[in-house]
Amino acid sequence: MTRWEPGAAERLQEAALELFATRGFEQTTATEIAQSVGLTERTFFRHFSDKREVLFHGQHLLTQAFLAGVEGAPPDASPMEIVASALRSATTSFFPDERRHRSRSRQSVIDQNPALQERERHKLASLATAVAGALRARGVDDLAATLAAESGVTVFRIAFAQWLREDEQRSLADLTAEVLRELLALTRDRA
Amino acid sequence: MTRWEPGAAERLQEAALELFATRGFEQTTATEIAQSVGLTERTFFRHFSDKREVLFHGQHLLTQAFLAGVEGAPPDASPMEIVASALRSATTSFFPDERRHRSRSRQSVIDQNPALQERERHKLASLATAVAGALRARGVDDLAATLAAESGVTVFRIAFAQWLREDEQRSLADLTAEVLRELLALTRDRA
Repeated sequence: MTRWEPGAAERLQEAALELFATRGFEQTTATEIAQSVGLTERTFFRHFSDKREVLFHGQHLLTQAFLAGVEGAPPDASPMEIVASALRSATTSFFPDERRHRSRSRQSVIDQNPALQERERHKLASLATAVAGALRARGVDDLAATLAAESGVTVFRIAFAQWLREDEQRSLADLTAEVLRELLALTRDRA
Repeated sequence: MTRWEPGAAERLQEAALELFATRGFEQTTATEIAQSVGLTERTFFRHFSDKREVLFHGQHLLTQAFLAGVEGAPPDASPMEIVASALRSATTSFFPDERRHRSRSRQSVIDQNPALQERERHKLASLATAVAGALRARGVDDLAATLAAESGVTVFRIAFAQWLREDEQRSLADLTAEVLRELLALTRDRA
């Protein structure tokens, strides 16, 4: 009989972040993470396919926030305007300033481990694929959809890294808008 | 005593591609790759840190071709013009049409394996970091350098995937120029 553990994934993620930060990612096992919050290894693997995945819990919600922004853009919006809407939607709903501290802890674990960095890149690539699909569903042609989505995710990634810097005060939504403006200026600059 | 094997890395890569294609990546060991060309496992690991790396041999030469293009751009070139120069340099020197067939075989191995896809993303990320560094060295400011380099690598990745399609006849240099034009048009289109 499988017992449903309410909020188990969140508790496991919280515990994992704590253990990864104090002992290191490599030195922490799935069993230890589970035990530290009174759960079993089996429960861990019911929620996460491997130890790396625990750091990417919530990824599908982030993707949904991007897609909600694509849907919310006006019917006559250009591809890059749709992407701007997706970025606004995702950054305001998903990364309020209260979350910055926790995001910093998580990032410092990822930055210390090449395998986690690869996984993170992969997740962002999946996000770009999902956004490109949503753009195509709105009638944007294939190449434009891919380029706009990839550019949007690049903007998000750069702004996110800036948001996590120790002395940074601006919100992620503001930083994202700023990086997007810089991208548009850059590409217009070319003769 | 370490014996130097001339061209060993290339022979190992050739053999690996063959074995990965026929038996599958997971089912092929480093020892088998080495033995198939009369070399030892030790020689394999002298050239490659793991089995995945064998597919990314030559990455540093690709990076150098990009950097040569950055250096070759006129002193007054805008960041995106420098990136266009880097793309031209890399695609013409590194991916002549004779290489298309081999690149297709390699890509089909990568496409079948998520761990290889992650490694590939990581390599492209390193390429973007190198190009951004070269732009900064030319005096481009930090954010513009990062955005221009990332955009360039995105253009390269999209054009490369198109180049490998079964029915594609255009050169990689032409495809890259076309995708770059589309990116510039897209970002100009925004009101």
